[in-house]
Amino acid sequence: MSGFVSFVGSGPGDPELLTLRALKRLKQADVVLYDDLSAGSILDEANINATLVGVGKRAGRHSPKQHHVSRLLVDYAQQGGQIIRLKSGDPGIFGRLEEEIQALDKAHIPFEIVPGVTSASAAAAAASIPLTRRLSARRLQFVTGHDVTGVLPENLNMAALADPECTTAIYMPKRTFPILAQRLMDHGLAQDTPALLAESVSQSEENLTSSTIIELAVQLKKNAGSAPGLILFGPLALRNNRT
Amino acid sequence: MSGFVSFVGSGPGDPELLTLRALKRLKQADVVLYDDLSAGSILDEANINATLVGVGKRAGRHSPKQHHVSRLLVDYAQQGGQIIRLKSGDPGIFGRLEEEIQALDKAHIPFEIVPGVTSASAAAAAASIPLTRRLSARRLQFVTGHDVTGVLPENLNMAALADPECTTAIYMPKRTFPILAQRLMDHGLAQDTPALLAESVSQSEENLTSSTIIELAVQLKKNAGSAPGLILFGPLALRNNRT
Repeated sequence: MSGFVSFVGSGPGDPELLTLRALKRLKQADVVLYDDLSAGSILDEANINATLVGVGKRAGRHSPKQHHVSRLLVDYAQQGGQIIRLKSGDPGIFGRLEEEIQALDKAHIPFEIVPGVTSASAAAAAASIPLTRRLSARRLQFVTGHDVTGVLPENLNMAALADPECTTAIYMPKRTFPILAQRLMDHGLAQDTPALLAESVSQSEENLTSSTIIELAVQLKKNAGSAPGLILFGPLALRNNRT
Repeated sequence: MSGFVSFVGSGPGDPELLTLRALKRLKQADVVLYDDLSAGSILDEANINATLVGVGKRAGRHSPKQHHVSRLLVDYAQQGGQIIRLKSGDPGIFGRLEEEIQALDKAHIPFEIVPGVTSASAAAAAASIPLTRRLSARRLQFVTGHDVTGVLPENLNMAALADPECTTAIYMPKRTFPILAQRLMDHGLAQDTPALLAESVSQSEENLTSSTIIELAVQLKKNAGSAPGLILFGPLALRNNRT
């Protein structure tokens, strides 16, 4: 008799940004498999008897390979009970969810997905700005700053990314943003396009930097730091730019 | 002494998909201004003494104009207390948030944004699929199916929208999808590109239709119905298409 897996979005990090369902699942958990980014005080909400298993994937650190994580998930699920696979933000957005679903399907293990607040929404909320704007930012897009090998993904759709009428959120952006920013400018995006760097959103060490794509590229080339971050760029209604 | 406004994302509709902070704000509310789409059983969570004000904006119905909503928000806030401006999904995504922020700024009324689970995340979770895929869908984009006059927005970035390696979520898509689908195919997107229509996500009447862009266009041209919906299209890992 195999267990049941809930892929649960933890939101950006503040336990208050968990959904009620996510909290309920954590309270019912027999096992919680968590990434570094979704950990912290959220784990305090888990059932006191739950087994907590870190499968830490964090930018720039040595971490378990994806197939090891999938294997671990299947192994725990085959022992039965309520397995929570906690993923930061929304599990369906840059969460490597598909690989884990495929492993569960192969082992005939049932699952559900509990959606969460994605980091782009949390970053914009922290900066008190909307992600879309009725006249100037009618499209919103999310991309990741690096592929599994840590470099900027190949075959980027530059016509989509360098669009001055779109808000773009880059997940895990910091180390590759200087290269991406140059490519955006090469494709015609203005160097003074507003950019927001949001680090450790919703955590006590939250840090928001309002900038432009060229200034932010220079800053991150000098020092990208290690805090988890997200970059928004485009026709942002940044508060310090308002008149 | 003016009040304080919290723009609160209600998520897709199921009260369990509220965040803990959203619930807390509803419990503290003196006034709740809500749209039709964010109403229903979520309003049962509001403080029993709170004044509930419907400012219904619903596709295809007569509804208050945006500047009337902004005016109402300012009027209530100037009377003091905790004002909750409840918006479906995440308030920063196609929520006309900027217009209301500008009205508050002009009246020097402080506010915060409480992010929520956006409908695209909820729809994908309901369908048990990820929104991004490591190799085939590295970009995710959100657009709206109509502008304020109810027609497909002008100046769409077709190079971005017809990209076969991107997952696209269309908010309020149903009446204009037949036209958009034709334009996508004209720009080279395959007619058998997977598409998912998600209606009344997370509600008891939830309905998911797995299809292709051409089939869905034909279906919606015949009958778009009135249920609130969202369309996902792109290289989706639809469950009934799996081998």
